[in-house]
Amino acid sequence: MTPLSLFVLDLSAEGAGRLTRHDPAEPVIPVTDLGVTRGDGIFETIAVRGGVLQALGPHLDRFERSAAMLDLPVPNRAHWTEAIEAAAAAIPEDPRPGAVKFVMTRGIEGGSHPTGWALGFLADDPSGERAGGIKVVTLDRGYRHDVAQTSPWLLQGAKSLAYAVNKAAGREAARRGADDVIFVSSDDYVLEGPSSTVIARFGDTAVTPPVELGILPGTTQADAFTALEAHGVATLIKNLSPADLVEADALWLCSSTRGAAPIRELDGAARTVDAAWTELMNTDLDARRR
Amino acid sequence: MTPLSLFVLDLSAEGAGRLTRHDPAEPVIPVTDLGVTRGDGIFETIAVRGGVLQALGPHLDRFERSAAMLDLPVPNRAHWTEAIEAAAAAIPEDPRPGAVKFVMTRGIEGGSHPTGWALGFLADDPSGERAGGIKVVTLDRGYRHDVAQTSPWLLQGAKSLAYAVNKAAGREAARRGADDVIFVSSDDYVLEGPSSTVIARFGDTAVTPPVELGILPGTTQADAFTALEAHGVATLIKNLSPADLVEADALWLCSSTRGAAPIRELDGAARTVDAAWTELMNTDLDARRR
Repeated sequence: MTPLSLFVLDLSAEGAGRLTRHDPAEPVIPVTDLGVTRGDGIFETIAVRGGVLQALGPHLDRFERSAAMLDLPVPNRAHWTEAIEAAAAAIPEDPRPGAVKFVMTRGIEGGSHPTGWALGFLADDPSGERAGGIKVVTLDRGYRHDVAQTSPWLLQGAKSLAYAVNKAAGREAARRGADDVIFVSSDDYVLEGPSSTVIARFGDTAVTPPVELGILPGTTQADAFTALEAHGVATLIKNLSPADLVEADALWLCSSTRGAAPIRELDGAARTVDAAWTELMNTDLDARRR
Repeated sequence: MTPLSLFVLDLSAEGAGRLTRHDPAEPVIPVTDLGVTRGDGIFETIAVRGGVLQALGPHLDRFERSAAMLDLPVPNRAHWTEAIEAAAAAIPEDPRPGAVKFVMTRGIEGGSHPTGWALGFLADDPSGERAGGIKVVTLDRGYRHDVAQTSPWLLQGAKSLAYAVNKAAGREAARRGADDVIFVSSDDYVLEGPSSTVIARFGDTAVTPPVELGILPGTTQADAFTALEAHGVATLIKNLSPADLVEADALWLCSSTRGAAPIRELDGAARTVDAAWTELMNTDLDARRR
């Protein structure tokens, strides 16, 4: 990623949402911020194409949902929108997709207010993965499928900064010669990727797992389903097992800047890349005007 | 906590472990550091009493162990010791215990080297908790007792910066009117606190759970066991169930700056505070000269 623009959002009572622009390389976080000492905060990443923030509303909705799950203050939607739009305005036209990552931490330990910022950047070019597909391994997420209900303090379904496990899973995938991961619950429910949502094709139906499993509501998956439905495809939210993944006609991982990446290998077994559905989803995803 | 002194450790090849002193309130972390964007890093907190860094060796050992579990570079022990000692030197005599927290993150995303620092601070005075005891609830950690073996990418047993779950568990405890937490595995093994180790007394024997459960090797618990053994107490590393906790004669949570805090209430039931063993452990813990 290539950082372009940084706007720090003053979330103190007196600050009233004031924005200050900084060089993205400039240190702006003290070592006593709970974001860095505890991963205690939340984030979202929004793709920017043709100057448009894609799925801004759903990302803000999910940010609010994560804030509630972590007992953080309700984000002021107007302030955050202003910060995100300021960061997006600095993104030039480029073959690579632009993106804005926005973050709210619990703030300085012992302090009175959260820390917030929005970072505009250029993401990696996803065209190779979209065309050629990705190699994926399934990995145990360790949790039962129902922990979001039984044990909400485990924060499953919140997009928190505490992503060390997600990064460790990515390194495990690399050790196994793969590009990405699908997490599976300890009782064999297909969950999500470390930073993506699973879509599986069965005949003329597209399926994704339900958020009740403690996974993130996929903003890109939701728009991909809208695209598929516009082309007459049936969509279904349904539990999947690892065996179901083996049976599926085709598989994708969806995320904001990558769009829909087809899976060409799962746990070492070659999979058919469905170029038609991939094209259909990504054409509509890239063309989103909101 | 009251921050006192901050030393940033240059972990680049050219930096060669150079230390720079900063005001602890000064921002020194850019928003592209993986420590703050992913909780992708490790830390330790060492108590400082009478100018002495207590259990420096075991803390450095555990730091190395965490680094290996997260595929971070092997810490240069001489450089880290220098940084930690520099931070400790700024801690004045005070009724509150001093401490040094040292942190290594994976560094700037796309960069070539980790970020490191040591922060000297005064911790909260533990004398009230030591004398009066703490109220504790048991909470599900969601993982089986054996995930450290089956699924090492879950990083159980690493002291990572991704502590949002530990903080959320603390808030759940507060909602239940308690001060702290003992985590229990999904298959009913007693694990550890969010930032402490469990000790249980059964007659003349002190028991703590084994690190094979994916818990941290307790540096304070180890020295507390040495203190108990010096007074003729038998010590044992052994699996415990929640039912065993109910049966125990007395219970403690141990951590660096707090020492051994006796549990006066567990899941709403009053527990006997063992003042004699508490005093015995804390006297020796506070008197450690290394």
